[in-house]
Amino acid sequence: MSETNLQVLLRRRPEGAPVPEDFEIVERPVPEPAEGQVLVRARYLSLDPYMRGRMSDAKSYAKPVPLGAVMEGATVGEVVASRDPRFAPGDHVMGGQGWQRFCAVDAARLRRVDETVAPLSAWLGVLGMPGLTAWVGLEDIGQPKAGETVVVSAASGAVGQVVGQLAKARGARVVGIAGGAAKCDFVTGTLGFDACLDHRRPLDPQLDAACPDGVDVYWENVGGHVQAAVFPRLNDFGRMVMCGMIAQYNIAPGADAAGAPAGPNLGPVVRKRLRIQGFIVSDSGWGRYDAFLAEMRPLIAAGRMRWREDVVEGLDAAPRAFIGLLEGGNFGKLAVRIG
Amino acid sequence: MSETNLQVLLRRRPEGAPVPEDFEIVERPVPEPAEGQVLVRARYLSLDPYMRGRMSDAKSYAKPVPLGAVMEGATVGEVVASRDPRFAPGDHVMGGQGWQRFCAVDAARLRRVDETVAPLSAWLGVLGMPGLTAWVGLEDIGQPKAGETVVVSAASGAVGQVVGQLAKARGARVVGIAGGAAKCDFVTGTLGFDACLDHRRPLDPQLDAACPDGVDVYWENVGGHVQAAVFPRLNDFGRMVMCGMIAQYNIAPGADAAGAPAGPNLGPVVRKRLRIQGFIVSDSGWGRYDAFLAEMRPLIAAGRMRWREDVVEGLDAAPRAFIGLLEGGNFGKLAVRIG
Repeated sequence: MSETNLQVLLRRRPEGAPVPEDFEIVERPVPEPAEGQVLVRARYLSLDPYMRGRMSDAKSYAKPVPLGAVMEGATVGEVVASRDPRFAPGDHVMGGQGWQRFCAVDAARLRRVDETVAPLSAWLGVLGMPGLTAWVGLEDIGQPKAGETVVVSAASGAVGQVVGQLAKARGARVVGIAGGAAKCDFVTGTLGFDACLDHRRPLDPQLDAACPDGVDVYWENVGGHVQAAVFPRLNDFGRMVMCGMIAQYNIAPGADAAGAPAGPNLGPVVRKRLRIQGFIVSDSGWGRYDAFLAEMRPLIAAGRMRWREDVVEGLDAAPRAFIGLLEGGNFGKLAVRIG
Repeated sequence: MSETNLQVLLRRRPEGAPVPEDFEIVERPVPEPAEGQVLVRARYLSLDPYMRGRMSDAKSYAKPVPLGAVMEGATVGEVVASRDPRFAPGDHVMGGQGWQRFCAVDAARLRRVDETVAPLSAWLGVLGMPGLTAWVGLEDIGQPKAGETVVVSAASGAVGQVVGQLAKARGARVVGIAGGAAKCDFVTGTLGFDACLDHRRPLDPQLDAACPDGVDVYWENVGGHVQAAVFPRLNDFGRMVMCGMIAQYNIAPGADAAGAPAGPNLGPVVRKRLRIQGFIVSDSGWGRYDAFLAEMRPLIAAGRMRWREDVVEGLDAAPRAFIGLLEGGNFGKLAVRIG
């Protein structure tokens, strides 16, 4: 095979916001699959906020990427060689092959994707980890009921898009929060949320207008001043689905530990019987993928589950695109097309 | 009947800590029970932290006590006259008759107490609202498993005593937090907790020693610096049972709303998949009383559920005793014996 394997390595651990020099792009030989493995050529790489945690060696729920190793990440791609009977060349698969063009991967760690349901790239977003995250958090914690008000931060992002549309499908009134008029227009116009608030403008008057009956479910993707504005509006028995707090991922190494900004006083948690609960999709999510897909397929087929992707070209553009993601620079699910 | 009905009224709403002048003690005629009511003579009145909320007109889960009305509270007492077939004079009952000697109360709102299980006053504490609170919070939120570490603040108080012993009965390692050596000695020596820490001394080194494997369940009764010390020690999948935050009830009207001190940054809630959940026993607790009692009876009979009461004499002592409760001045379940 005359092609080479382009890889993006973690060169050093960032202090605060990552910079391009924290990454290193190298060319390596294409690996050979061992028995039980397949060689996958990645077509799209997913870029997601959780990757910031993997760059740090602070204690977290997953091990950090070692210095000098390939950055972790999910891809969709094509089987080019197989030493496992379950896959043949040409099959399209999803898996966690990292920021690289080729990967020899255990067949058991791959999932086949069906392009009659949605195009290849969608299996990194609406039908990938972000979509599954939305579904698990609503199933286990948010549990929106018909008529309730659900507020979704980072509403135009990979997870937020799906959260809001799933909550709408369950009969809730859904209010998004996003950065800027273009994202807000997309959230209401294309995704069909009932309203979308711009977090770059004062949130309190916008929340007063959009949530006159308070908030029953708050989907937390961001933290910071958005959390501070929504928290006091939670109704009795309100649920706060703690999916992420991207606003502080760059604050300090182990950003969510010591030195992080203060949070809300928890007195109202008692008085209002609030439930604030965090989750990580990888704990139980993939074992429930079939139930997730069963709910998503008819919604997609009926046009009731839409999405927007923000696709950048080429693996060498991945570091800058990822840096932009942490600043809210993407518009829709961020992915890299690998040439 | 020649006796009069001594009552404690709410005279004005306190600003910050209540003072004796916020209450008024009056003598009134003994009421006549209507059809379907019984006349109860209270023997013991329970004093509990939640009453501070009822003195304020800030929005909360229950209506405030109106100015000039009898303070709310649970009592145990004796039926002196009955116009309902379910009760006869001499029966011992528990109910919410308020801070007064006599009350004509709907029979449906009373529960008979069985002194062969525990003495009369215990039905305000270990077998009353505080005990039921402990049981509901552990059943629904804390869910301690064998071998887990459970930390209980206000460990010698009415709720904390029961929380720790129930968690011990379920196989957990239980660490109390209380104010001063005498309370700590009681918590370990009499209640059988594995350790008890003194919150008047620096907590961090004490927690280091007592919780080397972190904290799986934190029972929150107090807030403030105790919460700040325990929160960072919660393990992955830790639960924080939000029962009360007495340290801030006197800070301001509607103490747990605007102007309250900051709380913990919620970043770790995501990373550690924490669950922080509040509850109020009156939401569902009384409908589950029989299941609670079924678990408590054998523990009491076996000497595995012990308790301490702090009994003050006479209704006119209730205001000062209640003021002391908010400052941690009681030692054990606080009750008033009504002569």
